[in-house]
Amino acid sequence: MRIKKIKYAKEKIEASSYLVLDAENYKGNWSSVFKNNNKIRIEIGCGKGNFITEMARLNPDTNFIGIEMFDSVLLRAIEKQEELKLPNLRFVRINALYLSDIFDKEIDTIYLNFSDPWPKKRHYKRRLTSEQFLDVYDRIFSSDCKIVQKTDNEELFIYSIETLSSHGYKLSNITFDLHNSKFNDNNIQTEYEMKFSLLNKKIFKLEAYKK
Amino acid sequence: MRIKKIKYAKEKIEASSYLVLDAENYKGNWSSVFKNNNKIRIEIGCGKGNFITEMARLNPDTNFIGIEMFDSVLLRAIEKQEELKLPNLRFVRINALYLSDIFDKEIDTIYLNFSDPWPKKRHYKRRLTSEQFLDVYDRIFSSDCKIVQKTDNEELFIYSIETLSSHGYKLSNITFDLHNSKFNDNNIQTEYEMKFSLLNKKIFKLEAYKK
Repeated sequence: MRIKKIKYAKEKIEASSYLVLDAENYKGNWSSVFKNNNKIRIEIGCGKGNFITEMARLNPDTNFIGIEMFDSVLLRAIEKQEELKLPNLRFVRINALYLSDIFDKEIDTIYLNFSDPWPKKRHYKRRLTSEQFLDVYDRIFSSDCKIVQKTDNEELFIYSIETLSSHGYKLSNITFDLHNSKFNDNNIQTEYEMKFSLLNKKIFKLEAYKK
Repeated sequence: MRIKKIKYAKEKIEASSYLVLDAENYKGNWSSVFKNNNKIRIEIGCGKGNFITEMARLNPDTNFIGIEMFDSVLLRAIEKQEELKLPNLRFVRINALYLSDIFDKEIDTIYLNFSDPWPKKRHYKRRLTSEQFLDVYDRIFSSDCKIVQKTDNEELFIYSIETLSSHGYKLSNITFDLHNSKFNDNNIQTEYEMKFSLLNKKIFKLEAYKK
């Protein structure tokens, strides 16, 4: 994703109550943020927030947190939420490597949508399904662990199948062409995915479970 | 694969010393057949034997057994072997469901090349990577378990990723386009694969390990 610098993005998102600042303070206690004990799902790299916002709107009994590093895209997600004011949706600005600083065994599902494929071998460990990230996820998952990944990048997809199965995950609901599969009915598209849809590019999807 | 009936195929293959008849008698004792303790690899559905024969020729320090149910194709494999007389190659005519009647924790690697995809849901359990077959393989594998699968069928390939990961296998060396991948250099083609090659059809491949 190309990221446009937006003036005062940092100041604007920090002014929103939907961005959780000092998220470390809620480690192990995110139920207090949402004022309920509903399950919590996160999207790592939520970008402009289309996916996570739609998910939150359609699933009011589940809590959602969008994780994003970049102010300028996060601003768009937060502007949308400032209009919708969904009670079950928050955002955190953090590098995913530090997720275990802010969550303690309280995440139910992780969504990875069109993550950076990091094509160079020396950068593989930056991929969100590398061993170092799977280790982080182990620390933030509650008893059930579920990762849902969508990507248009075949190399990243294959890499994920290999690392996830090596890390003890069982894979299911795999498709090599999401938009022409039985899994498309309930599919909520990201901004990126909509563009690819129009180009008829194939989208890969998998789900990974661990008990 | 379409199978032509060949007259006297049964009689002809049974006359060869390279077909092991009464294979149950060697359960746990296949080293006596090969007269060495080398590792044993099998191909389930070896067809006319191109793959397993080439593997045996190129790897004289490993034993190979081609498993096939149909006399008419097996005849071609055995005719080839009667010319080559490779000491490390044998054939067995058996339904793969009964493999644990003839092997006891003595198989190192199983090759599944272009197995029948059994497209109808009610036939899924006939697929060579269904739970019922993976249970059989558990009983015949020695300490190391390795399954190597090639197929042109996307549905079978996805099914295999799901069942293998559910059965505790780690997946590796996956490619969605074998003939245009780095894995093609050492690839030995089956008869079926050669035909598909010419049509530029994509071949999927995976390896699955369990300790």
